[in-house]
Amino acid sequence: MSSQAPHPALLIPGPIEFDDEVLQSMSHYSESHVGMPFVKCFGETLTMLRTLFQTSDPASQPFVVSGSGTLGWDMVASNLSEPGDDVLVLHTGYFADSFADCFEAYGVKPTQLKAPIGDRPQLDEIEKALKEKKYKLITVTHTDTSTGVLSEIESLSKLVQRVSPETLLIVDGVCSVGCEEIRFDDWKIDCVITASQKAIGCPAGLSISMVSGRAIESFKNRKTPPNSYFASWKNWMPIMQNYEAKKPSYFATPSPQLVHALHTTLKQITARPMDERFKIHKEQSQRVKKAVAELGLKQLAEKPENQANGMTAIYLPEGITPPEILPKLMERGVVFAGGLHKQIATKYIRFGHMGVSVTDPKRNDIDTALKALKDSVAEVEAARKK
Amino acid sequence: MSSQAPHPALLIPGPIEFDDEVLQSMSHYSESHVGMPFVKCFGETLTMLRTLFQTSDPASQPFVVSGSGTLGWDMVASNLSEPGDDVLVLHTGYFADSFADCFEAYGVKPTQLKAPIGDRPQLDEIEKALKEKKYKLITVTHTDTSTGVLSEIESLSKLVQRVSPETLLIVDGVCSVGCEEIRFDDWKIDCVITASQKAIGCPAGLSISMVSGRAIESFKNRKTPPNSYFASWKNWMPIMQNYEAKKPSYFATPSPQLVHALHTTLKQITARPMDERFKIHKEQSQRVKKAVAELGLKQLAEKPENQANGMTAIYLPEGITPPEILPKLMERGVVFAGGLHKQIATKYIRFGHMGVSVTDPKRNDIDTALKALKDSVAEVEAARKK
Repeated sequence: MSSQAPHPALLIPGPIEFDDEVLQSMSHYSESHVGMPFVKCFGETLTMLRTLFQTSDPASQPFVVSGSGTLGWDMVASNLSEPGDDVLVLHTGYFADSFADCFEAYGVKPTQLKAPIGDRPQLDEIEKALKEKKYKLITVTHTDTSTGVLSEIESLSKLVQRVSPETLLIVDGVCSVGCEEIRFDDWKIDCVITASQKAIGCPAGLSISMVSGRAIESFKNRKTPPNSYFASWKNWMPIMQNYEAKKPSYFATPSPQLVHALHTTLKQITARPMDERFKIHKEQSQRVKKAVAELGLKQLAEKPENQANGMTAIYLPEGITPPEILPKLMERGVVFAGGLHKQIATKYIRFGHMGVSVTDPKRNDIDTALKALKDSVAEVEAARKK
Repeated sequence: MSSQAPHPALLIPGPIEFDDEVLQSMSHYSESHVGMPFVKCFGETLTMLRTLFQTSDPASQPFVVSGSGTLGWDMVASNLSEPGDDVLVLHTGYFADSFADCFEAYGVKPTQLKAPIGDRPQLDEIEKALKEKKYKLITVTHTDTSTGVLSEIESLSKLVQRVSPETLLIVDGVCSVGCEEIRFDDWKIDCVITASQKAIGCPAGLSISMVSGRAIESFKNRKTPPNSYFASWKNWMPIMQNYEAKKPSYFATPSPQLVHALHTTLKQITARPMDERFKIHKEQSQRVKKAVAELGLKQLAEKPENQANGMTAIYLPEGITPPEILPKLMERGVVFAGGLHKQIATKYIRFGHMGVSVTDPKRNDIDTALKALKDSVAEVEAARKK
């Protein structure tokens, strides 16, 4: 039985439901951030991230820093690009707009390649864009949390290597790491940024990144110093390397409790093959998408190859809005999220299916959610007809 | 009885020991960051910060953002100063050097006014400096965690108002908020930045700030946009105002568990008069400093008016180093910190006495620590004489 107080199942695309043991790690008694017990825990956590990202290249560099996932954008913009650089931002929703804003704050020039809502930029369009200008970075949102659109990383990477091999490939994996396949080395990714509170299954508050040796070299060869401080890898890199080597080190105080919780969830995740984890997420996602279709509801991402495995963004029946349906879902014990994409925010809802809600057979979250969705839609539609 | 597993008392100058109820809040079940239960909790937390900082001016703006205390420097440098601005950094140890580095990362020009180790810049020197150049900001480390030196804020503020009234007064209160008197309105402070894990008594992972209406006006009248993104108040200000008005709002995902823990500790702190809290910290600090003197040990901060009330930095007897004494203290159930000021790091240790370790009469942390210090010094000295 869960040690958590009774509560509705949180099935938004992050934060997600957390395992009991992970939440208990959050209450760990206070420890020195430079004492050996915590240094060991932090070091092991960094090493386990290598397994999570499927990288065995010792030049790959993990970072775990207190902050929201958004802090990862600042890290990319201020460490991997320099003022005046051009970067190509592939747009599949809200989060590309924000990443572009972040680049601009650091004096970097983003060019957005936009797709219609629910779709993603096509490889031939990307090829054309890459040939038009020399881009320092190309960024892709692996799963855009605002639309549930999944981007394809492997073929994108091959394209970039062929057409513009000097361009670094940056993956925003906030809503994908831990539920979508990511083969960091095999796919030659230069940087994945993510956050703790989604498919990694640790409460919010940690910015997590993996950076390739090639990207670290590019960082070291900057013409100008990083134009951030808390987000600067110049400050954090020696700290991460020391912690992983089990040596105490200090730049800014990490959050021992959050790192303990991350350690706990990574231990659980890496105890099983990563492929098995991706398979379970895919199977459960298929089940959700099938049930949604059976209700006569459409997804924002129409094409199956565009559909994320950790969440589903669902158009509501014509005329029904999130403020009508979300309370009905809540009454039935599940929390979904409203729309986030500005142009259509009032027309859809988002259902997150990541982490223990899909991997823990003792939970019944997905069944409960699908039944709640069916009954809530029926209730609202019946009320409309009166 | 404490619900925490048995562990040595953490008496470093942060993170500190945490109250059971605060640690339990860290395990709060997962909640939506835009759902009403959490929005209410976050909103109340922001409002309680006004009491903590003793500000009743509605124009004062609190910020709570996921990050280390260091993130507060980025907020100051990228929101309150602009590239090319001159800022005056009063130096009482390690943290002024780092704050100056942070300003430089954002293109701001810091001038450091340094005092000898254990001392602080004097008012006449500060007056001279303020008259030499037009400074956008003056920064002061209230308690420098590396030296235990306390700065005097009220007289500094009066000086700045008299000599350079347009200069904004910025207080680094990471090691002072919650244990040293701070009268935000009365002392006409423009910004205090701090962190959760010291005298506020909440686990690390939150950057906490209070900004005056005057500083917010100055921010709004910037000639250039903020040159950060995650640290930008342009992004966070509407979010903080919405949360405090109990309206859901999103820029980047906050950490619900850390905010719950902050809510719990602020509820405990603000249930009693702030002056009472400062008095207890002062009394216990006096007791520590008296005991240290009785052991024949000197503090880095020699002058009583320079001595912080939340920590004591203690020179070790000639020839004894932190790696010799710290394990002896650990054997006796207490964790102190080594030196941090680069020039003398091997010559001193730091003893933090903040939060529940001094305010909770059921704990015996200070007595245990003083006895452990006495016995450890005696043991190391006896071994030396052999």
